[in-house]
Amino acid sequence: MEEITIRIFEKEPGTEVKAPVLIEGLPGIGHVGKLVAEHMIRELGAEKVAEIESIFFPPQVIIDENGTVRLANNEIYYYAGEHHQFLFLVGDFQATSAEGHYLLADAYLEFGRECGVSRIYTLGGYGVGRLVEEPRVLGAVNHPGLKAGVEAAGAIVSRDEPGGGIIGAAGLLLGLGHSRGMDGICLMGETSGYLVDPKSAASLLRVLNTLLDLSIDPTLLEQRAEEMEHMLQKLVDVERISQDEELRYFV
Amino acid sequence: MEEITIRIFEKEPGTEVKAPVLIEGLPGIGHVGKLVAEHMIRELGAEKVAEIESIFFPPQVIIDENGTVRLANNEIYYYAGEHHQFLFLVGDFQATSAEGHYLLADAYLEFGRECGVSRIYTLGGYGVGRLVEEPRVLGAVNHPGLKAGVEAAGAIVSRDEPGGGIIGAAGLLLGLGHSRGMDGICLMGETSGYLVDPKSAASLLRVLNTLLDLSIDPTLLEQRAEEMEHMLQKLVDVERISQDEELRYFV
Amino acid sequence: MEEITIRIFEKEPGTEVKAPVLIEGLPGIGHVGKLVAEHMIRELGAEKVAEIESIFFPPQVIIDENGTVRLANNEIYYYAGEHHQFLFLVGDFQATSAEGHYLLADAYLEFGRECGVSRIYTLGGYGVGRLVEEPRVLGAVNHPGLKAGVEAAGAIVSRDEPGGGIIGAAGLLLGLGHSRGMDGICLMGETSGYLVDPKSAASLLRVLNTLLDLSIDPTLLEQRAEEMEHMLQKLVDVERISQDEELRYFV
Amino acid sequence: MEEITIRIFEKEPGTEVKAPVLIEGLPGIGHVGKLVAEHMIRELGAEKVAEIESIFFPPQVIIDENGTVRLANNEIYYYAGEHHQFLFLVGDFQATSAEGHYLLADAYLEFGRECGVSRIYTLGGYGVGRLVEEPRVLGAVNHPGLKAGVEAAGAIVSRDEPGGGIIGAAGLLLGLGHSRGMDGICLMGETSGYLVDPKSAASLLRVLNTLLDLSIDPTLLEQRAEEMEHMLQKLVDVERISQDEELRYFV
Repeated sequence: MEEITIRIFEKEPGTEVKAPVLIEGLPGIGHVGKLVAEHMIRELGAEKVAEIESIFFPPQVIIDENGTVRLANNEIYYYAGEHHQFLFLVGDFQATSAEGHYLLADAYLEFGRECGVSRIYTLGGYGVGRLVEEPRVLGAVNHPGLKAGVEAAGAIVSRDEPGGGIIGAAGLLLGLGHSRGMDGICLMGETSGYLVDPKSAASLLRVLNTLLDLSIDPTLLEQRAEEMEHMLQKLVDVERISQDEELRYFV
Repeated sequence: MEEITIRIFEKEPGTEVKAPVLIEGLPGIGHVGKLVAEHMIRELGAEKVAEIESIFFPPQVIIDENGTVRLANNEIYYYAGEHHQFLFLVGDFQATSAEGHYLLADAYLEFGRECGVSRIYTLGGYGVGRLVEEPRVLGAVNHPGLKAGVEAAGAIVSRDEPGGGIIGAAGLLLGLGHSRGMDGICLMGETSGYLVDPKSAASLLRVLNTLLDLSIDPTLLEQRAEEMEHMLQKLVDVERISQDEELRYFV
Repeated sequence: MEEITIRIFEKEPGTEVKAPVLIEGLPGIGHVGKLVAEHMIRELGAEKVAEIESIFFPPQVIIDENGTVRLANNEIYYYAGEHHQFLFLVGDFQATSAEGHYLLADAYLEFGRECGVSRIYTLGGYGVGRLVEEPRVLGAVNHPGLKAGVEAAGAIVSRDEPGGGIIGAAGLLLGLGHSRGMDGICLMGETSGYLVDPKSAASLLRVLNTLLDLSIDPTLLEQRAEEMEHMLQKLVDVERISQDEELRYFV
Repeated sequence: MEEITIRIFEKEPGTEVKAPVLIEGLPGIGHVGKLVAEHMIRELGAEKVAEIESIFFPPQVIIDENGTVRLANNEIYYYAGEHHQFLFLVGDFQATSAEGHYLLADAYLEFGRECGVSRIYTLGGYGVGRLVEEPRVLGAVNHPGLKAGVEAAGAIVSRDEPGGGIIGAAGLLLGLGHSRGMDGICLMGETSGYLVDPKSAASLLRVLNTLLDLSIDPTLLEQRAEEMEHMLQKLVDVERISQDEELRYFV
């Protein structure tokens, strides 16, 4: 068994799958990057072109809504429009070890290189430990020349934040991408860090729209987010009812 | 030393050991899967055909009732009856690392492939955090076409449960088995998660009996379970007595 | 850099270093095994014939009493008397990972095989969580035929103890040794588990004396142990004084 | 992707980069070694000749003051003066695993060997758990013949300290360097262990000045340290203000 397997679907990377831009939105703080990337995939109608399985992911399967399992994995989606071609990297998990993080990031970049990627956007959250009314979007770049454009699009490139650096795929794709001559921009939406945060995702999407010259509607993202919150609330209610029922055994 | 060693006994896999069905019951929540698989091995008189040792298991030996040690391992048992041929995968432990989980599951599947396995049943518990009077059996499949049969046999294929996916060998054998074209069904008996749970195991066995067209008696499993509970109680009593004796030194 | 390096000193394994018996006393519960093996090395005047370094040991150096450092390692000592030839395996640490435990144990056995080892004694403590006035010695074997001899020498081969198996080198050398056709006996002195326990070590040595037809004096071990306890007491006193001095700053 | 990559800049190791002495100051207790080594690099005007990237470092990027990221790495600086030639090993992190520590230390030593290094100074802190008015400098050597010189320079080579050995690169470079025939001296400044400690660093530098026949001004180091303390104080103040503002939402 290979440490990392990239299973290509019908379209061949480099010939049928060609894109200058890779957008990463793997799970992370507030799932901000994941929300944005998955929203873009739906809105643009991007198609899945590859699945990535790895011994560095948690050893588990995910159960879909029909009770069918599939291996925990990451996925590559492809969008080829008239004006833009994008690859999206999304998925269930990041690596479980430091070594796995590096080796997976390297594999993602190698796949990107085969598809002609020269610029990477990594999307994430920036946990501030408190509720944020109007989430700012922070930016970081892997090349000084990229800074002005990121600031012009509405992101704040701060000399103090995030203090601890950028951890995981969002950081490594920029750092390892630099060695491969790829431009890299990381956008981070401010978020409490306690909850899935679609409001932060909407803020981030607005900046990304400007950077990519797109006009994907963030209000739809917010609506989807509100639905999620309703579902979350229902789960909490169900939990409460079941606890109440359980208590009856003891009363 | 190999990372994983499968020590074959007398019978040759593929020629002398041939079975279309692999049943996994490794240790897990409530030891539900382990109880069912070991009960079936005893009832059917299956014989051990292979032992699996690995650097991914905990670094320890098990002491048997005569004070003789053996390396922590997993074992393959083989049953060849007139109507059914089964492989059973049971053992002391699962892997100690994410990587080990994947590599062991892959090794189990490769052994299964050599023996002609085309369908896998993985057995486990589904921890609900409270005592369950009448444990349900949940099912998950690695192929939508398997769902109807599992439901007909009395298992519930739920779109909500288990929420966190299936962790360890019970999940990976289905996920990695899918890539090898093997059908996979996971059965999970509801259990508190705090105790070894033979009642849940008996429920699970009833469903498996139906699925496999067998009639292994679950009451025997329940009797063995009651014996276990008695032994457990004795141990608790011994512990109490020894604590009482110890207290005397201080009185 | 090799994962495991066995640095041979002057004498060549297999020709100049030949012994049928390997005695392991690596650090463990109560340092019982370590105390016994190091005492035997001193009493018999065994000489160091090899050092083992490994990336699986903790990444640190030990400072000797002159301020000179040496890499954390394990060591092989050799004793060749008229009636007995022994290898001793002692050292600073056991492995830091499950995989490392297996690979190191395998390397120790391979070295033993080169030197003609056919029987292994592993020495350790058996933590019981309370002070023990007259520590029993428990035994476990990797071959049923060894049991009677171990019991005749005064060890108790129990069907219940230790319940959790034997963890680390003391267990793996027996388990992996079995596959190499080596006899293996583990002796465990009862000990609280909280302190270095020379009294338990002396009990263990008495059993080992009988098994090996030796007469190494355990009272010397107890004297050394008492010295250790005095040193320990001094350290505690120094600590108290330094704490008192520190408190003066705040008074 | 290699486990460890040493990216050489313009100057070729062994021909253009030649030095008998390697000085290590990686992050550690009180950042004492890091403060000293980075201060020496600035004062001597040493130039960066290599960067080391590794899957054994934490999976993250560091953001510089302009919002530009770079991969977490270690760095080699080179100083070639009339009387002295030094290599400096500094950087962001040490390894995240025991195995990584060994493999990185081995790679550092191999690079040193190519550059002609025959003596290594490793610099660190020695945590004592209390504030120290006049920090002593402890020394350890990998060869008894080095002890007298270290003591003459003002370091204390103690038979009791540090009791637990020396962990990480500072220890391994001495231990593994010994096998390569390299002299190794570890200097450790006493420090509380709770704070970055420039006062301890200044004490250490004085000893190192003597050992290397240098006269690098430690008062500058203390000034830089005071600036750091002011910055730290500002951060604490900002934190307080932001907490006060947050409280207003609830008042």
